[in-house]
Amino acid sequence: MSLRSVFSVSSIRRMSSITARAIVYNAHGEPKDTLKCHSYKIDLQNLQPNEVVVQTLAAPLNPSDINQIQGVYPSKPPLSIDSLPELKEPAAVTGNEGVFKVIAKGSNVGELETGDWCIPSGVNFGTWCTHRLTTDKNLLKMPKTISLNQAATIAVNPSSAYQMLTHFVKLQPGDWFIQNGANSQVGRAAIQIGHKLGYKSLNIVRNRDNLDELVKDLESIGATKVITEDESASKEFGATVKEWLEGKEIKLGLNCIGGPSASNLARKLGHDATILTYGAMSKKPLSLPTGNFIFKNLTAKGFWITGNIKRHPELRIETINAVLKFMEDGTLKEPKVNEPKVKLSTTTNESFLETVLAALEDSQKGKQLLKFE
Amino acid sequence: MSLRSVFSVSSIRRMSSITARAIVYNAHGEPKDTLKCHSYKIDLQNLQPNEVVVQTLAAPLNPSDINQIQGVYPSKPPLSIDSLPELKEPAAVTGNEGVFKVIAKGSNVGELETGDWCIPSGVNFGTWCTHRLTTDKNLLKMPKTISLNQAATIAVNPSSAYQMLTHFVKLQPGDWFIQNGANSQVGRAAIQIGHKLGYKSLNIVRNRDNLDELVKDLESIGATKVITEDESASKEFGATVKEWLEGKEIKLGLNCIGGPSASNLARKLGHDATILTYGAMSKKPLSLPTGNFIFKNLTAKGFWITGNIKRHPELRIETINAVLKFMEDGTLKEPKVNEPKVKLSTTTNESFLETVLAALEDSQKGKQLLKFE
Repeated sequence: MSLRSVFSVSSIRRMSSITARAIVYNAHGEPKDTLKCHSYKIDLQNLQPNEVVVQTLAAPLNPSDINQIQGVYPSKPPLSIDSLPELKEPAAVTGNEGVFKVIAKGSNVGELETGDWCIPSGVNFGTWCTHRLTTDKNLLKMPKTISLNQAATIAVNPSSAYQMLTHFVKLQPGDWFIQNGANSQVGRAAIQIGHKLGYKSLNIVRNRDNLDELVKDLESIGATKVITEDESASKEFGATVKEWLEGKEIKLGLNCIGGPSASNLARKLGHDATILTYGAMSKKPLSLPTGNFIFKNLTAKGFWITGNIKRHPELRIETINAVLKFMEDGTLKEPKVNEPKVKLSTTTNESFLETVLAALEDSQKGKQLLKFE
Repeated sequence: MSLRSVFSVSSIRRMSSITARAIVYNAHGEPKDTLKCHSYKIDLQNLQPNEVVVQTLAAPLNPSDINQIQGVYPSKPPLSIDSLPELKEPAAVTGNEGVFKVIAKGSNVGELETGDWCIPSGVNFGTWCTHRLTTDKNLLKMPKTISLNQAATIAVNPSSAYQMLTHFVKLQPGDWFIQNGANSQVGRAAIQIGHKLGYKSLNIVRNRDNLDELVKDLESIGATKVITEDESASKEFGATVKEWLEGKEIKLGLNCIGGPSASNLARKLGHDATILTYGAMSKKPLSLPTGNFIFKNLTAKGFWITGNIKRHPELRIETINAVLKFMEDGTLKEPKVNEPKVKLSTTTNESFLETVLAALEDSQKGKQLLKFE
């Protein structure tokens, strides 16, 4: 039985209620120890004027989701008995990003129509679920001019890349930025957006067997130059970089690795440059060469999109709109994802949880995007 | 024979020329290998309209002076045959800070009178010398409302402290800042200026035998709290610090140590705080805890007074005036210095150089201020 036949708008209208399932936790810890699947009824009739019922179409598993479950992420949804209907103990719903389809709406819901796509308008909404009952202010309409996978992953990685490239340093076309972890989702988005805006990028990646292939891949999406961590660490190689820059100074650095990788990146920055740190994949502290830092007047800032949006709420919509355009005009290619499936017609609490745990397990191998079909 | 009898204004006027001596270098390297004393005549008559002849009264030996001689400091005076009269090969004059007395002036020199005190108005003036022939635009008049030692050391350490406390984060009375190396000249100045401005200071010092004495000393000049590096590194001790803060968050950190000391300092900073790095006494890279850095939205900046003044020239005069007031009103106590003497009446090239080299040798033991008498 296909999704459409079960949950098409017309069939939904005929149903008085649906069984929704959500992956929740009652306490922080390792996902395999703490995650549960909670099921509950959503009444599709008698909705309050601003209520909306959505069905999840796709939801990515981001590293920050895991940190949130572990309790080591500073943005924590409260463990509350009111998080979902029919909870027996206080819980939080997992997942922070995803795209939904509106399947029912109250009388006063203006902008959203049944069938529309939407994403959470804020943080900690909970997206690893089949359906949610919420209100319209918690949702942001997504046009269908982009792919489902793009809509599902618009809010974190490309949005981070866009804000880091545009919000802190005013780069001009022809200006250089440098980044490590260049093959990460954020790194790839930064290459593409930067290229579209006319910025040149110096991209640092780990050495690997298929390096040539990766270099070609990154160049094909707009990377100006790609170097390895070893080259970045080499003093001699500095001359080559200098030649590439043709007298220009690098004004912006994006660091998601930390440790010596960050030091080597910082050494290539020019006077008055800014280095933004948005991750620590090496699990080492951010290390910066003091002489350069002082005498080149460098600025280092932490970047966290959740915090940045809290401080600058206007950035949320502005960023989504900008990234939407980059998706629509082909600047941003389809994200590379694996797609574990949740079959809405047959899933049980057990099978849903199993799918999520397996996908978490596979997160090391590549980006996982839960697809609800 | 006393200084006054040799170089009093009236006797100078009767002299047609004087023999000046300056410590110079023709190449970068270790001071003991590269420093020389160059002597030359200064004609006190027939001065050009804007020329001024000054006699050095006092000049400190700053760590940056040594780095400059070694060639590892980014602000380098050019090695030039025109640096001083009668040079046989290109040279630079050592020293960057000091106070002079005007002993002769051209017809168009307005603000400075014979006998006035003055300091270099810019960088790389060269102060480890007995006399200089220069023009009035290179000099800034110093009122005699402060002590000679204060005038000699006004431009670097207390000026750095003042700019770091006021130029980057707008602290309000009652706000906290934190600093390591709190017993350094900059640290002590920051304590005193901060106290006067109503800021509370959390001061980190190395453990030592006479710790109690040092704590009392720093408290007596206005330190709110003094802790050791060990206490700063201790997780348990964090609770004590939290209690002291009474719900406030630390908004500004000053770091001159680097390495783990900087990490421990950064961990105590509040949301949106700034950490300024102006030194690396541990000779370790600046290390920052990434989680805090990202999630607390910290900003780290390098601070170098020479660079800061180049970017904001108006700050030079504003800062000197502010620090002058703090010296005049007793906010800033006399700096603790050792005073190696250069006897103007008897010094030779050899003895002058010997005095400077011995003072450089003693720099580890405490601040050295050359006094010319």
